Amino acid sequence: MADVAACAVELIHAYSLVHDDMPCMDDDDLRRGKASCHKQYNDATALLVGDALQSLAFEVLSNTQKISNTKLQLSMLNILARASGSIGMAGGQAVDLASVGKSLSQAELESMHLLKTGALIEASILLGVANGSEVQIIAARTFAKNIGLAFQVVDDILDVEADTDTLGKTAGKDATTNKPTYVTILGLDVAKQHAQHLYANAINALKPFGASGHRLKELADFITHRSF
Amino acid sequence: MADVAACAVELIHAYSLVHDDMPCMDDDDLRRGKASCHKQYNDATALLVGDALQSLAFEVLSNTQKISNTKLQLSMLNILARASGSIGMAGGQAVDLASVGKSLSQAELESMHLLKTGALIEASILLGVANGSEVQIIAARTFAKNIGLAFQVVDDILDVEADTDTLGKTAGKDATTNKPTYVTILGLDVAKQHAQHLYANAINALKPFGASGHRLKELADFITHRSF
Repeated sequence: MADVAACAVELIHAYSLVHDDMPCMDDDDLRRGKASCHKQYNDATALLVGDALQSLAFEVLSNTQKISNTKLQLSMLNILARASGSIGMAGGQAVDLASVGKSLSQAELESMHLLKTGALIEASILLGVANGSEVQIIAARTFAKNIGLAFQVVDDILDVEADTDTLGKTAGKDATTNKPTYVTILGLDVAKQHAQHLYANAINALKPFGASGHRLKELADFITHRSF
Repeated sequence: MADVAACAVELIHAYSLVHDDMPCMDDDDLRRGKASCHKQYNDATALLVGDALQSLAFEVLSNTQKISNTKLQLSMLNILARASGSIGMAGGQAVDLASVGKSLSQAELESMHLLKTGALIEASILLGVANGSEVQIIAARTFAKNIGLAFQVVDDILDVEADTDTLGKTAGKDATTNKPTYVTILGLDVAKQHAQHLYANAINALKPFGASGHRLKELADFITHRSF
């Protein structure tokens, strides 16, 4: 069941990358060090690939052959659908597009990222504790919100500091496209401090999980200290 | 439950129209007599609107508040997800794109339409009998395949015979874009006979439903005899 959920999240993530790279969105030729989907094929193919990957996520998660707890599975489907749509990832993308060339406050930037990248990260954590206690679910949500934001702060820092080869996508893109980022709003040094602050909040939220929170701590470590 | 399923199918249908109208696909400025989504807003917005509508379809159908039979609901989600993805509607669109400017046999055209428009029509019928007997499900599938193809044959005829005002979308599009259609393959008269043949097959398949097949017969009547 955990495998199925992980697979479904990965499919939603992959679809969003294919659509995000398209000319009408981020217009990026490079993804994971290779030509992005629309560049390798064409725009129509990329559109359909993204659409079909989203359907496949819900197909995989609604497969009844491996499942015993149907109520739990429905809840997981609902978590993933909400995280993907207009009150989650897609909604965050729309706010992001509307923000290009505008000056945002830190709070506005955060609420955009909580949707755009945070919603799917939160869903991936919540799917893992969908059968957990209320205390665990609240703790997981706090953990997820903080690593979701940390992910974005680090992303903005890497866009300035890393090179294209290391990133596997085009570096320096935010400045070229005049996007508001944590670096433009806070400056590089304060952005780095902010990432550490969010990391500390995330680790602190893991207490109710005791020793079983070890893998989640590793996830927070990776997100905050990655170089790509 | 029937309302929820109908709503989910409509959301998938609406998303597919928004994406189909985009410049990289059919590039159509008009939909239901109004500016299409990308024309009214922009391409990025249309992309995100379509993506979010697809998520919303699965969100609506996975809502557990109105449901008692969770197993049935999971089956319905799986039917809709399969019909929407690469082995259904999105896959059919990809075959359609690959066919532009090529000469197709009637069998090739049919297998493309069974995916492109047929899969979602079939899903909408199957969702209504998801709890039915095996005989009913097989009959519904035959009915659906025939009205799905009839829908497309009539669509191809209308593209030639109707005007833009009546259609609410641009008439004469198929010839301009050099698409293989039932009219180009069979000629107008034989295409009309073929639509009647498919209609008769559909009506014949309704026998196991007895009097309760009345509404499905009305649906077949509408699809075959519509003028828009």
